[in-house]
Amino acid sequence: VDTDPAVQRLLDREAITRLVHAYCRHFDQAEPDELAALFTDDAVVDYGPESGQTRGAAALRDSVAVGLATLFAATSHHVSNIEIDHVGPDEAVGHTYLYAWHRYRDGRADSELWGRYLHRFRRTPSGWRIASLELRAAGSRDFHRQRMHPIGRASP
Amino acid sequence: VDTDPAVQRLLDREAITRLVHAYCRHFDQAEPDELAALFTDDAVVDYGPESGQTRGAAALRDSVAVGLATLFAATSHHVSNIEIDHVGPDEAVGHTYLYAWHRYRDGRADSELWGRYLHRFRRTPSGWRIASLELRAAGSRDFHRQRMHPIGRASP
Amino acid sequence: VDTDPAVQRLLDREAITRLVHAYCRHFDQAEPDELAALFTDDAVVDYGPESGQTRGAAALRDSVAVGLATLFAATSHHVSNIEIDHVGPDEAVGHTYLYAWHRYRDGRADSELWGRYLHRFRRTPSGWRIASLELRAAGSRDFHRQRMHPIGRASP
Repeated sequence: VDTDPAVQRLLDREAITRLVHAYCRHFDQAEPDELAALFTDDAVVDYGPESGQTRGAAALRDSVAVGLATLFAATSHHVSNIEIDHVGPDEAVGHTYLYAWHRYRDGRADSELWGRYLHRFRRTPSGWRIASLELRAAGSRDFHRQRMHPIGRASP
Repeated sequence: VDTDPAVQRLLDREAITRLVHAYCRHFDQAEPDELAALFTDDAVVDYGPESGQTRGAAALRDSVAVGLATLFAATSHHVSNIEIDHVGPDEAVGHTYLYAWHRYRDGRADSELWGRYLHRFRRTPSGWRIASLELRAAGSRDFHRQRMHPIGRASP
Repeated sequence: VDTDPAVQRLLDREAITRLVHAYCRHFDQAEPDELAALFTDDAVVDYGPESGQTRGAAALRDSVAVGLATLFAATSHHVSNIEIDHVGPDEAVGHTYLYAWHRYRDGRADSELWGRYLHRFRRTPSGWRIASLELRAAGSRDFHRQRMHPIGRASP
C-alpha cells in the first residue's frame, strides 16, 4: 500500500500514544517486565534529582520493581494533552500531561502529582519504543519526593 | 470509496472514543435517556459488587436516572488512556482510565474515584454502541461504595 | 494529493486538538504571548460572570498576563473528553473536559476545578485558531472564583 504521508504520521502518533498508555497500565498493574519491554535497550529514564538517571531497560525494570513491591500499594497514572512530533521518519518527541494518584504501603497520606512526561521515541524493528523519559512536576500534594524537575514556568 | 483498512480502523476507534465521551457527558448532564441510547438493547453493565449487574439499555436508564435524581448533585467523569482494540470488523474491546469527581445531594464530602472502564463495543446498523461496561477501581476517596472490582494489580 | 474527506476531517480534528493542548501548555508555562497567538484577532473569551468577556487576542494576552504574574504561582490544565465537530469546512465547535489544579502566590489553599471548555475554531490562512472560548464548571474546591457558568445539568 502507498500510504499518504499524513496518514502514516497519524498512525505513528497513534502507535506512540498506545506506548504511553501501556506504560501507565503496566505501572499501575505492577508489571515491571511488561513495562520495561516498552523501552529501548539503551533507554534513559529520569524521575527527578532524588532518583538519578536509570540507563537501560533492564536497570529500569529492577528499579521500578522495587518501587512497586516496597513503596506503592496502588497507583493511577492518568495521561492527557499528548503532543507528539516527528523529528524524523523513525524518531519522535513527546510532551504529555500526567495526573497521578498514589497510595503507600506504609499508610502515609495518599499523594497526587500534576506533572509532565518528556519522551523521546524510536522506531525499532519491533515497533516504536521509548528511548528516553523525563518526569517534570508542576506541583504535588503529599508526594514522596520533595525535589522534582520543574516544568519551566516562565514567571516562577 | 475504497478506504485503507488502517484508516478504517482509525475512524472506527475515533467513533468508539466519541461514544465513551458521550457517556460521560450525558451522565454529568443528568441525561439518562441519551446515555442509555449509547448502549445495545442487551448491554450488560456492572458498576461493582454492591450494585449488581444491569441487563439491557432500558434497565440501565432507570438505574442511572435514580442515581442522578437522588444521590448526585454534580459529577465529572474525566476519561483518558483510551485503548481500543478490534476483535473483529464489527466488535471491539476498550480499556479506559477514569478520574471521577462527585458531589452528593445530602451534603456529605465530595468523592473522587481513580478507576477503569472495561468496555465491549459492537457495530450496529445505527453505528457503534456499548455492549458491555465494567467499572474497576484503583482507589478512591470518600466514595459512596466501599467494595469495588479491583483493577487486578499483580502485587497487591 | 486528493485526500479522502474523512481523513481530512481526522487531520483537522488533530490540528484543533493540538491547539487546545498548546493553550494549556502556554498557560501553565506562563507564556501569554504564545497563548494569545492561538486565538483569532476577534476572539471572544469568557472565563465566567465574575471576569466578564474579553474581546480580541491582544486584550486576552493582557488579561492572562496579569493573572499569571499576580495570582497564580503554578497551574496545571489537564484536558480530556475532547469532542470536535465541524460546522463547515473551515469552522468547528468543541466540547472539552478540564481538570485544573492551581497554586496561588499568596499562599491560600491550592484549588481544583472540574470544568468544560466550549470552543469555536476557525481555519485561517495561518491554520486553525480559537475564535471563542467559554469556561463552565461542574464543580470546584477552593477555587478563587465563586460564581461560574454552569455546565447545564438537567436535574440540578
